[in-house]
Amino acid sequence: QLLDDLIAFFTPKHLAGQHVLVSAGPTYEAIDPVRGITNLSSGKMGFAVARAAREAGAEVTLVAGPVGLAAPRGVNRIDVKSAQDMLDALLPLAERSTIFIATAAVADWRVASPAAQKIKKEGSGQPPQLSFSENTDILATIAQGPRAKAGRLFCVGFAAESEDLLLNAKAKLLRKQVPLLVGNIGPDTFGQDHNALLLVDAEGSLALPRAPKLVLARTLIREIAARMARQ
Amino acid sequence: QLLDDLIAFFTPKHLAGQHVLVSAGPTYEAIDPVRGITNLSSGKMGFAVARAAREAGAEVTLVAGPVGLAAPRGVNRIDVKSAQDMLDALLPLAERSTIFIATAAVADWRVASPAAQKIKKEGSGQPPQLSFSENTDILATIAQGPRAKAGRLFCVGFAAESEDLLLNAKAKLLRKQVPLLVGNIGPDTFGQDHNALLLVDAEGSLALPRAPKLVLARTLIREIAARMARQ
Repeated sequence: QLLDDLIAFFTPKHLAGQHVLVSAGPTYEAIDPVRGITNLSSGKMGFAVARAAREAGAEVTLVAGPVGLAAPRGVNRIDVKSAQDMLDALLPLAERSTIFIATAAVADWRVASPAAQKIKKEGSGQPPQLSFSENTDILATIAQGPRAKAGRLFCVGFAAESEDLLLNAKAKLLRKQVPLLVGNIGPDTFGQDHNALLLVDAEGSLALPRAPKLVLARTLIREIAARMARQ
Repeated sequence: QLLDDLIAFFTPKHLAGQHVLVSAGPTYEAIDPVRGITNLSSGKMGFAVARAAREAGAEVTLVAGPVGLAAPRGVNRIDVKSAQDMLDALLPLAERSTIFIATAAVADWRVASPAAQKIKKEGSGQPPQLSFSENTDILATIAQGPRAKAGRLFCVGFAAESEDLLLNAKAKLLRKQVPLLVGNIGPDTFGQDHNALLLVDAEGSLALPRAPKLVLARTLIREIAARMARQ
């Protein structure tokens, strides 16, 4: 911890005066009181980003889905479960943030009618049928809101893909209308301590080769600060 | 840890010479490479049972679904993901165990055809349709196998219910054909450090009131030892 403090002390304060909002981890969509749909996101990348932003001098709030990680020191943490919970937590915070980094792996769909009691397999002998409703797109909602449109909230998206990283990341950059989109390969990063990132913006792309997530997070924070300075 | 060792040292060795197999935690059934279905089981009850069995002098093997807990000292641990993985790990171990305590919250169903690539919401605009296949009943398979039938493997089931605990636990006792079934209320126990148990056997039921999971686990181990001594 002393070492962490020393590192933070000597980190250039690229983000001094900024309010950084980070979403992290998976979401959990209930099927019934005990079962649910989640994903393999461990939250490690988002927690590393929150830490790197704090080291760079920002005020940082981290909105996290269900993960077993400790919050980085000096970071405000809010725990949520479902995609809707996460949206509800983020919307008011985005109004007083200057940077939003959406690392969370948010469920695209929720179960349309979660059961109030545990679904029993003894009943009909039939497996349950699950139907889904689409969740609100958190990143697009915030990135296309008035604050981001007015240039007062710099939005960064993450894309976890299983193939065609550059193609999918470019498509997501346009679809979400964010100035910076960070692609990574989901099965290669989820739960891992290392990752590799592909930063995609209107100009092109920058590959950050495989490294510890904290190292990548610090580079990403510098890239964000540089882009904001150019605006 | 010194305190733990002292407690273990002074615990009566009710299970000396026994080989105890414990399953714990949730299972994870893949929907695609990044998404899956799980449940709110934290594994805490199963890890406490494994520790209590070890304190009571048994050789203990713990087969755990994805949880962030450290294995109790002196306990062999095997990590698994899906219900099928858990069955595959447990079957050979059950052949050399004398007690099997099935605390895991095993998925009743798996996704019939998991997608090889991440399911995209941009495709058809339609939510995905999930169809399910029933998983093999791990407890019933082991409890109705030749070793258990010959009286060489004492099987204990857990039932996590959301209502009608006694009724559901009694039905499960008969259906699984185990000598002891432990009921608890899923939403009250999952993720918690405390729990309350209802031990159900052919004679009747015994309620263990709300207490730390380790305290309950130690009582359960004594109850199992007493039942085996009476056999």
